[in-house]
Amino acid sequence: MTRIDDLPIRDELRGKSPYGAPQLDVPVRLNTNENPYPLPEPLVERIAERVREAARNLNRYPDRDAVELRTELARYLTRTGGYEVTAAHVWAANGSNEVLQQLLQTFGGPGRTAIGFEPSYSMHSLISRGTGTGWISGPRNDDFTINADLAEQAIAENRPDVVFITSPNNPTGTAVPAETVLRLYDAAQAAKPSLVVVDEAYVEFSHGASLLPLLEGRPNLVVSRTMSKAFGAAGLRLGYLAADPAVVDAVQLVRLPYHLSAVTQATALAALEHTDTLLAYVDQLKQERDRIVRELWEMGYEVTASDANFVQFGRFEGEGAAHDVWQQILDRGVLVRDNGVPGWLRVTAGTPAENDAFLDAVRELKKEQEQSA
Amino acid sequence: MTRIDDLPIRDELRGKSPYGAPQLDVPVRLNTNENPYPLPEPLVERIAERVREAARNLNRYPDRDAVELRTELARYLTRTGGYEVTAAHVWAANGSNEVLQQLLQTFGGPGRTAIGFEPSYSMHSLISRGTGTGWISGPRNDDFTINADLAEQAIAENRPDVVFITSPNNPTGTAVPAETVLRLYDAAQAAKPSLVVVDEAYVEFSHGASLLPLLEGRPNLVVSRTMSKAFGAAGLRLGYLAADPAVVDAVQLVRLPYHLSAVTQATALAALEHTDTLLAYVDQLKQERDRIVRELWEMGYEVTASDANFVQFGRFEGEGAAHDVWQQILDRGVLVRDNGVPGWLRVTAGTPAENDAFLDAVRELKKEQEQSA
Repeated sequence: MTRIDDLPIRDELRGKSPYGAPQLDVPVRLNTNENPYPLPEPLVERIAERVREAARNLNRYPDRDAVELRTELARYLTRTGGYEVTAAHVWAANGSNEVLQQLLQTFGGPGRTAIGFEPSYSMHSLISRGTGTGWISGPRNDDFTINADLAEQAIAENRPDVVFITSPNNPTGTAVPAETVLRLYDAAQAAKPSLVVVDEAYVEFSHGASLLPLLEGRPNLVVSRTMSKAFGAAGLRLGYLAADPAVVDAVQLVRLPYHLSAVTQATALAALEHTDTLLAYVDQLKQERDRIVRELWEMGYEVTASDANFVQFGRFEGEGAAHDVWQQILDRGVLVRDNGVPGWLRVTAGTPAENDAFLDAVRELKKEQEQSA
Repeated sequence: MTRIDDLPIRDELRGKSPYGAPQLDVPVRLNTNENPYPLPEPLVERIAERVREAARNLNRYPDRDAVELRTELARYLTRTGGYEVTAAHVWAANGSNEVLQQLLQTFGGPGRTAIGFEPSYSMHSLISRGTGTGWISGPRNDDFTINADLAEQAIAENRPDVVFITSPNNPTGTAVPAETVLRLYDAAQAAKPSLVVVDEAYVEFSHGASLLPLLEGRPNLVVSRTMSKAFGAAGLRLGYLAADPAVVDAVQLVRLPYHLSAVTQATALAALEHTDTLLAYVDQLKQERDRIVRELWEMGYEVTASDANFVQFGRFEGEGAAHDVWQQILDRGVLVRDNGVPGWLRVTAGTPAENDAFLDAVRELKKEQEQSA
């Protein structure tokens, strides 16, 4: 049998494993920040209808520039983001991962570097490496906020070509203040200039506003978004960005032609017709998220301030302690995420019943620990 | 206004234009090798049905490994390709372009090179460049077949990491004999060893058989396929490959997680249920392709032997002559493709009526030229 290492693959891939959370068959899955609410049935019907229409023309290539979809995404951003954008400012791809990959192929790549402030969304470093972009791990404060002074310094010293700022941050949950983003943008322009990507995958769950208005007058700033979370459409794989139209023109130099299928475009358009219904679910999830924070706090856990649909909790002292707790929660039928942040775990806000199951599990754990202590 | 060149993009992208055929509004479009037959209505309904089902679970990430789809693709290959493969031998992505990109990220990339024998499918060189892989343009005979001696020599001299063989070749149309592929594979193994990718996007239209059986005992061989052509589903963007299971494991080190949406998987599965109907259209298109070859030949045009759903014809002598003829055909309401092969144009086999329109146009042109001569 041939093994991977028998093949002429790139040296840096040898011994690596594919990225991805364990897909386990567990009653309560709160590990991948999915939206727990299935799409409402009228939207399901509308998707079937729009896809049926698209399927009648499926022998033809899709609209390569996805103009109708970008127009509707721009309308959504303008309505909810506090800043007016048009289709010319918006680009879409198969998940925000593909958006980020296209940005790195255009602004990063061999001989260039990207910086992120870790722990953060681990695909930033993985896609950087996948595109041959050198990765620089920038610092955070102990409370997982970005230390603007240290971050500025890291940018000045390393002169990266791409700067990632995740707001709200994943897996820790806290949003980044606009003034921090502005300081880092200015530092990045002074150092190089470089592209600054604000990853707002979870912004609809935030207590504060989107950073979209910062795009004004900043051609090297990009805001990336996804329909996986707030739109409850992780299965759709639709990510997008807003930026100066020149950035949108630039990524088209590297995008694979016809990268976005006609069925993806049709499904996303159907979902955008139902924005208000979907955003109502977001309100429910924010309340549940706040409840999880409160109850964990009351139990005596430490909790990182969350602007997302998930909560980071701990602190579990000792080597491997977080993973042990992860296993004990799993033994109670609830799957949360061990992102490898020492001492901390992450739980996604699910339905009220799912969250009860999670809270009951950790309450039990706490009691057992106290009894054995 | 910010222009692309004001942005900190990679130097090699400066001054470049996005890849893509002109999308013109013309009565008869025979320029992108699309299948002219819309999907049959029962299949359209089945797609709507399967997508409706998938949409009910769209809040969850899709099956990351697309196991059901890969199983059905393997079944199709086994049935039609003369060689038994399983899901473990098959990998799928958003168009064969993404399959090729993943292969190049794994086996090519910075510091490595790929070779193709040109003219051929221009995305091979473009995706190579997009992944930082050096591109080597290998030779062909004057009749556009691969000269195995010269090709072996080019491989031995350049020691590329990836070798592309397009069979049937695009834009010229001719299939590559198995013995040529075997000689090139052996040369590539002796030189490096390197990965050999046989791009069979058009193989269902061939007079001969698939090269799939060559996979036996050759772990560094890959056959890539697409549902865009024979399956009449260019809008779906579903490409796939068959290879040793180790190759499938290897591309998973670079694939973006959840790259293939639940709606894409559902739509492709529906289409695979209707394989027999779709392959019947392929038979019609082969007959029409042969008619185009015959009639062009009878008019006195030169025609490259075609195993695909398109025909390369010429020869138009003089600088810019092919492009002039392209414009004259377009003036008659028929859009064909100028791939930049000096002296030649490419026409896709359409419906009988579309092909008549094309043949009438070039017949008229021929007459005018003879009268003015």
